[in-house]
Amino acid sequence: MLTNLAVALLHYPVLDRRGAVVSTAITNLDIHDIARSCRTFGVGRFYVATPVTEQQVLAAQIVEHWCKGFGASYNPDRRVALELVTVVPDLEAARQHWQDITGSDPLTVLTSARGHGMSFAACRSLLATQPLLLTLGTGWGLAPELFTAERPTLEPIQGAGNYNHLPVRAALAVMLDRLNRSI
Amino acid sequence: MLTNLAVALLHYPVLDRRGAVVSTAITNLDIHDIARSCRTFGVGRFYVATPVTEQQVLAAQIVEHWCKGFGASYNPDRRVALELVTVVPDLEAARQHWQDITGSDPLTVLTSARGHGMSFAACRSLLATQPLLLTLGTGWGLAPELFTAERPTLEPIQGAGNYNHLPVRAALAVMLDRLNRSI
Repeated sequence: MLTNLAVALLHYPVLDRRGAVVSTAITNLDIHDIARSCRTFGVGRFYVATPVTEQQVLAAQIVEHWCKGFGASYNPDRRVALELVTVVPDLEAARQHWQDITGSDPLTVLTSARGHGMSFAACRSLLATQPLLLTLGTGWGLAPELFTAERPTLEPIQGAGNYNHLPVRAALAVMLDRLNRSI
Repeated sequence: MLTNLAVALLHYPVLDRRGAVVSTAITNLDIHDIARSCRTFGVGRFYVATPVTEQQVLAAQIVEHWCKGFGASYNPDRRVALELVTVVPDLEAARQHWQDITGSDPLTVLTSARGHGMSFAACRSLLATQPLLLTLGTGWGLAPELFTAERPTLEPIQGAGNYNHLPVRAALAVMLDRLNRSI
């Protein structure tokens, strides 16, 4: 159970394919897939973060359709997953919300497909003693301005070679599986 | 490197939410996500299997767009992933194609979200000596008729509780990560 863990999916500030800092659009399937993975591995909360009001409304409508609307009775398994979702404007709002739920100050852990970072084993040890907020970026990943000294980065998922273009939906599932396992 | 491994995504025969055997529609994002995960972990081939001719044409058009069309120059990383895809009518055609490439008879390994099955460690040991064809179902999973004595089943991915509704895209990524790791 990863009850001490929350996941944040940021739509700003993230990079586009040219390295510019942009705000990306909500992707319906990101919300569904990541919510299902979070529910499977017992994650406490899944924050969908976007500063764009219209995008916040869209995300909230998707969640409401499956939690209270027609979708709730059509597919109760989906409801159980999407009940984990909270729509927030930014990373700080996610952190504050997760702090209000857990009653202690959560550590924000960033993710990247490149470079070095804290091992999964070290992250598991931290999780045993305090709440964490695992933060992933849409687009081409989290913007450099997010990588401050007080936010450690989790090591990248190493595949079989230099190709490191996992979908954020797949990367998150692998991270949760690694954090959930005893080895 | 999972060079001895190929992945097959079946759109027939699979179950719908009521347990009926159906043929599902191609999902664009399944092809992209699974191809990217396969390329990341060094999988040898990714078979998209559907018996519906129009659906085969659609899948082939998606692949061609990203491998030879505008997409190939727009996003070369996507081309490298989608070059792994071969569209086939059914599981037997995938097995035959993978046999032609590897030069030996591949073992078909099925997947399921429920029940028991071969451990990931045992599957890794098999992979060290022979080609395997890891087979996943769309919809609500592979139809019972596929589960024959000569096709072992891989153990389900256990999460934190009874909720076992991982997206096929997420489940496949976790499976490849587990098969690729030494522990």
